[in-house]
Amino acid sequence: MPKVYSFIAWSGTGKTTYLEALIAALKARGARVAAVKHDAHRLSLDREGKDSWRFAAAGAEMVAVADGEKWALMEYRPRSLEEILAQMHDVDIILVEGWHTEARNPILLHRAALGQPPKLPPDACFAVVTDAPLDSGGRPSFPLDAPEALAEFLLAQTEE
Amino acid sequence: MPKVYSFIAWSGTGKTTYLEALIAALKARGARVAAVKHDAHRLSLDREGKDSWRFAAAGAEMVAVADGEKWALMEYRPRSLEEILAQMHDVDIILVEGWHTEARNPILLHRAALGQPPKLPPDACFAVVTDAPLDSGGRPSFPLDAPEALAEFLLAQTEE
Repeated sequence: MPKVYSFIAWSGTGKTTYLEALIAALKARGARVAAVKHDAHRLSLDREGKDSWRFAAAGAEMVAVADGEKWALMEYRPRSLEEILAQMHDVDIILVEGWHTEARNPILLHRAALGQPPKLPPDACFAVVTDAPLDSGGRPSFPLDAPEALAEFLLAQTEE
Repeated sequence: MPKVYSFIAWSGTGKTTYLEALIAALKARGARVAAVKHDAHRLSLDREGKDSWRFAAAGAEMVAVADGEKWALMEYRPRSLEEILAQMHDVDIILVEGWHTEARNPILLHRAALGQPPKLPPDACFAVVTDAPLDSGGRPSFPLDAPEALAEFLLAQTEE
């Protein structure tokens, strides 16, 4: 089973940019990575007029499209994080963004310049990533500007 | 396990329009439907610049996005039809388009006006849908302009 980590941060922390760099750092170290993002806004999963969109508009609950190299599945029903994670195969690590209430192995991203307190108490986190000294309550702490360090740490967990 | 049907037709038959109407007819009869389409062209699964696109560009093999009502999974690796079908849950019937070599329960769509021979021998098919009289070799035959008839037939199979 792949390890799952949830990233917790205030808006404005630069979470997407950090995750992008973390994915690249994990990938460079040979890991197979999945990313799962919950969006509070209503998503548009497909483009109007495409065949897959027409099938969904006609009432299909699930629509998949594939070419020889990649594929996508769109489901027009709510699913829990648990159910979505169960659809992830052949990956070593799953990075989750935005399911705070179901956070697994929460990793706090903290940017002091925002002037906010940490979004989760650091000692309730699996690890802490911060741009400034922060009492991490004994949890492992990593610099916000060097995702490689967290990548190494997470991969070491995966090998355990 | 949901029943799987593959739709086989020449380009120009009106397959997408037929499937759209078939989905609506199945849906109107209470079925939960999935549609799976293989595209010979290279698909664009996501929109450049979106967070999910950035995660994939950074190297994530799988990216999922969800809001409270629906979700999508994009995988940047090839998968067989078998593997894609295994990801379909809580549906009664799966309609497949475009995997001719792995066709399951093939349903021939035939439009005589195209002036082509049937794309598969009718007697090798599970059922035949045609706009003009066609020797179906004893296979059940349905009109191209009335997907309701095929919907009823397929749902009767599902109940077996």
